[in-house]
Amino acid sequence: MKKALCIISGGMDSAVAASIAKSEGYEIVALHFDYGQRTMSKERECFDKIASSLNALKKFVIDTSFIADVGGNALTDKNIKIPKNALQDKEPPATYVAFRNGIFLSIATGIAQVQGCEAIYIGLVEADGSGYPDCSSEFLEAMNKAANLGTGCDIKFKAPLIGLSKGQIVATAYKLGVDLANTWSCYENEDLACGECDSCLLRLKGFKENNLNDPIEYKKIKFKD
Amino acid sequence: MKKALCIISGGMDSAVAASIAKSEGYEIVALHFDYGQRTMSKERECFDKIASSLNALKKFVIDTSFIADVGGNALTDKNIKIPKNALQDKEPPATYVAFRNGIFLSIATGIAQVQGCEAIYIGLVEADGSGYPDCSSEFLEAMNKAANLGTGCDIKFKAPLIGLSKGQIVATAYKLGVDLANTWSCYENEDLACGECDSCLLRLKGFKENNLNDPIEYKKIKFKD
Repeated sequence: MKKALCIISGGMDSAVAASIAKSEGYEIVALHFDYGQRTMSKERECFDKIASSLNALKKFVIDTSFIADVGGNALTDKNIKIPKNALQDKEPPATYVAFRNGIFLSIATGIAQVQGCEAIYIGLVEADGSGYPDCSSEFLEAMNKAANLGTGCDIKFKAPLIGLSKGQIVATAYKLGVDLANTWSCYENEDLACGECDSCLLRLKGFKENNLNDPIEYKKIKFKD
Repeated sequence: MKKALCIISGGMDSAVAASIAKSEGYEIVALHFDYGQRTMSKERECFDKIASSLNALKKFVIDTSFIADVGGNALTDKNIKIPKNALQDKEPPATYVAFRNGIFLSIATGIAQVQGCEAIYIGLVEADGSGYPDCSSEFLEAMNKAANLGTGCDIKFKAPLIGLSKGQIVATAYKLGVDLANTWSCYENEDLACGECDSCLLRLKGFKENNLNDPIEYKKIKFKD
């Protein structure tokens, strides 16, 4: 039985990436990070639903609240505003958490080594992403090399969505039967998704490209073509 | 004023590495990790003394207690015994914490980016080390590349002790005036260093090679030539 460690934030991308791992014949070890992000409880709830739907062998919820001590980002610092309708205005945007994916992949590497997982799946999106430097395929490849040198293992880092558009990600979710009602993308912590932050804009773009309606509710949809 | 982020465990090696950073003209931002290791309080006390002696601009103490959840090592799991008089018996030894240096360097990268540090100093020792896979220069180089790709910064990872013997490290400490009484190397959490774990054996080897006495006290010295 081959096992994959899947980093599952609770968002759409990582849910689809984990479903791809399952469809490629892996049993799933599910990994989630709580880091004091504004939307922590919502993301955690989605993580639990996604892990259940994948019949995960094991779940890890790792407290990385130290990320708030690292500072400098709008996701953990409530004094920094979440940018609205600002997609690709500035790179990296205020929501960039310094080297977050590097930190997450390092912790995942340690867990994968102890758990004997052959692969780590992460929902990185490069082309149609938020402009974070730690979402590129060059970064992922370098990190994979470091992980294998630093553990003496041969773990494969897989980012099956990295070259896909948001429309292609939504289409893949439907193809694999991922219930996107169980995912949360908005950066704000409100009852309904805001519809205006970068993450909502990208998600809505994905549905629009498929002429589909998002099953989650929005406070406001101000999507621009 | 150029700044270096120094990872300071409280042990001899990282104290010497941080002193080298200072001697190379950097102002010091001091970083320590608490991860529920057996010797946490002793190491923390040494960290504070070392950071003070370097007039650190800022201190970060990062709670990485999730490392106990990753598991599989004798430093955080009291059911796994610390090997005694077993240097180089088995690689990696039971004290290997899966990808610890990768995790520490990733967090350090995030802090260095936010704090504007040009370099990260770490006390890795390859040749005369404990046989951990995440102590090699190949690993460090790959990790440095990943860090720069993932942040868009140009941060230099420096491990000035990587090619030194323990004897050379002790000699460097004396040359730079590092007070080794303020450092703790033993893996056990007792009042006196055990003198038998890998870390004590390596430290004692360093003093012996210089015909010096270690300023800290040992419960037992059973050093073999």
